[in-house]
Amino acid sequence: MLYMLSNAQIKLIRSLEQKKYRIQHGLYVAEGEKIVAEILNAKVAFAKVYVTKNWIEKNDDLFHQNEQLISVVNNGELNKISFLHTPNEALALMPVHYPSINNFSMDDNLVLALDTIQDPGNMGTIMRIADWFGINTIVCSDNCVDVFNPKVIQATMGAFLRVKVYYTNLEDFLKNQKNKGISIYGALLNGEVIYDAELSNNGILLMGNESKGIHENLIEFIDKPLFIPKLGGSESLNVSVATGIICSEFSRRKFLK
Amino acid sequence: MLYMLSNAQIKLIRSLEQKKYRIQHGLYVAEGEKIVAEILNAKVAFAKVYVTKNWIEKNDDLFHQNEQLISVVNNGELNKISFLHTPNEALALMPVHYPSINNFSMDDNLVLALDTIQDPGNMGTIMRIADWFGINTIVCSDNCVDVFNPKVIQATMGAFLRVKVYYTNLEDFLKNQKNKGISIYGALLNGEVIYDAELSNNGILLMGNESKGIHENLIEFIDKPLFIPKLGGSESLNVSVATGIICSEFSRRKFLK
Repeated sequence: MLYMLSNAQIKLIRSLEQKKYRIQHGLYVAEGEKIVAEILNAKVAFAKVYVTKNWIEKNDDLFHQNEQLISVVNNGELNKISFLHTPNEALALMPVHYPSINNFSMDDNLVLALDTIQDPGNMGTIMRIADWFGINTIVCSDNCVDVFNPKVIQATMGAFLRVKVYYTNLEDFLKNQKNKGISIYGALLNGEVIYDAELSNNGILLMGNESKGIHENLIEFIDKPLFIPKLGGSESLNVSVATGIICSEFSRRKFLK
Repeated sequence: MLYMLSNAQIKLIRSLEQKKYRIQHGLYVAEGEKIVAEILNAKVAFAKVYVTKNWIEKNDDLFHQNEQLISVVNNGELNKISFLHTPNEALALMPVHYPSINNFSMDDNLVLALDTIQDPGNMGTIMRIADWFGINTIVCSDNCVDVFNPKVIQATMGAFLRVKVYYTNLEDFLKNQKNKGISIYGALLNGEVIYDAELSNNGILLMGNESKGIHENLIEFIDKPLFIPKLGGSESLNVSVATGIICSEFSRRKFLK
């Protein structure tokens, strides 16, 4: 009863590590026992799921509700298609979908704007932070790492199911939003101390590249530069840590209101 | 005038990826143009430095002050000993030293205690956070990832030169500190909301493992459990992000005092 993957299937799935093949096939990979259970529970669209017998024992109901789209494989087969060092009982093929920036609208929460975030771990961790603080939307510059990169998906710990990620020309986007009167915050070394700063309920928080910070051409759109005071010798904080700290400050204002 | 590494030297340096060889040779590797300049500027002990001509052009004074201990190599040679994907102009061999917990003393700042942190990126990022917020000391459980792991050193962005890291039995350590009346804070899902919590100037902040949190046997020592309120769907925050947010809250109390 165990499903055997064909060489063509293995080749296709493994190719999804690269963006051009994700776009060509319209698919990306999400892995892990919990993530796959979450996908099935959330009833979001998926193309195909591969699981081990061990996974079925723990997720019997989910298996029976989705039996037609699930193939049961052994660990050796899962190994052939997994991007993890230690393959983890379940793998889902999901449909790639990039929402159009034309459908963007401000909600009553912060929106994150990311300029040239290149490390998949940082991108995933920032999505996880957004998800924790109830931030639903991230707008990325076109040269940010692709959200459907398997390392990004892995680092989100499920946040990719809840946080919407747009890719666009950030300069045009920020110009538009500023014209609409939206507050644009940005993390800058010469900004206002976050502990004192007046922070609104919504607005856009712009975070910059891991080593180069926010690009020159975007800085002019920031009307509220923010700074996390430094007491020691470090030159900078990791961008996902800084994002977490600033999001927490916005959250604290709401929480204590 | 370019130095050629012998096969024995290359083998030795590459072996330093593993803890047992770091201990056997008493050496670890720190890499990168800026880090090596920082090491020489800080006048800390180092065993040997390898640099490219390009590095010397940018760091002429430092080169001449330390000429006897510096070998100039070409990019190909540096490539053979580097742990980076893109070798970066300079590599230092540094003496391994584990400070004894008997020399630990509380200062007037927070001390971080880490229980079973296993990811090198997290360990390095936490050291970088400590360094940013002026925290000088981290106490690790014996099973945390080794601070001299090249990936940890890389992620610290230089913080390893300023933050002292002890390894010890955390249970004994926390028991001792509690008996001395030191406040022990810990990040727990059922803790007090950090935004409201009374936070002292010093004390110990205990952070737990990436997936399992703080071990059962250590939880009893926490007299001030802390929690970062969650507004969205995420199950948890990354441990280094959570550490950054809590350290920032301690810092804010000092800052606004």
